Amino acid sequence: MKIYFSCSIRGERPDPETIPMLIGHMKKHGAVLTEHIADILDGDEFDVTDEEIFLRDIAWLGEADVLVADVTAPSLGVGYEIGVAEALGKPVLCLYRGRQRKRLSAMISGNRGLVVREYDKPEEARGFIDEFLKSCVG
Amino acid sequence: MKIYFSCSIRGERPDPETIPMLIGHMKKHGAVLTEHIADILDGDEFDVTDEEIFLRDIAWLGEADVLVADVTAPSLGVGYEIGVAEALGKPVLCLYRGRQRKRLSAMISGNRGLVVREYDKPEEARGFIDEFLKSCVG
Repeated sequence: MKIYFSCSIRGERPDPETIPMLIGHMKKHGAVLTEHIADILDGDEFDVTDEEIFLRDIAWLGEADVLVADVTAPSLGVGYEIGVAEALGKPVLCLYRGRQRKRLSAMISGNRGLVVREYDKPEEARGFIDEFLKSCVG
Repeated sequence: MKIYFSCSIRGERPDPETIPMLIGHMKKHGAVLTEHIADILDGDEFDVTDEEIFLRDIAWLGEADVLVADVTAPSLGVGYEIGVAEALGKPVLCLYRGRQRKRLSAMISGNRGLVVREYDKPEEARGFIDEFLKSCVG
């Protein structure tokens, strides 16, 4: 299974411990096309242009079987990728950390086409990932 | 012409003077389906559920001829709507206020399928709106 994982990069920084842990966990289920995110959480990507990032990421999204997005922090890029993945008919899991949460966008929380799950401890997010990815295979 | 206008609502608040001015200006070109945004900038919507907001907004987006988005603030909903509008083949104008800008997502700035314009003074945004909407008609 090919998994596209997405979280805020240039907006609010996500938890630098949780994201690599979630990516490591997803790798038990298949290939995480965007696993480099774990390495750029505190620095962005400096050796590629924005257009190169866009073209690479949109190709990966087209290639992926599923999208897993951490929607804890507001992000134009994550929202964009959810919209594109849904239009392409790909299953989408949106995870958000409840205790850090600002109010989630109604375009996510009100959309029954997405699987939206709130986690408190990062271990709970792993359980939601297992449940979602197994449902995509089965 | 039917215009869908989008900006951050539940994330970072946009400028409460600029947004109503932009909406008023767009109304010279056609119907702004989301003109209620000018009234909820400091209060969100309390009399509808998130699912009702989603279903209403996605229907408006389907009906719209174009999307105009203020992408100054990170927003999952705005990003989602840009992804959906692009998938539906609708022209998209993304405006961001440079002096307030955090780094724009590469999924927006690196995407040649979108018209992206930086403004400093709100009057400049009006000029970009005129230019974009005329190009959609002509």
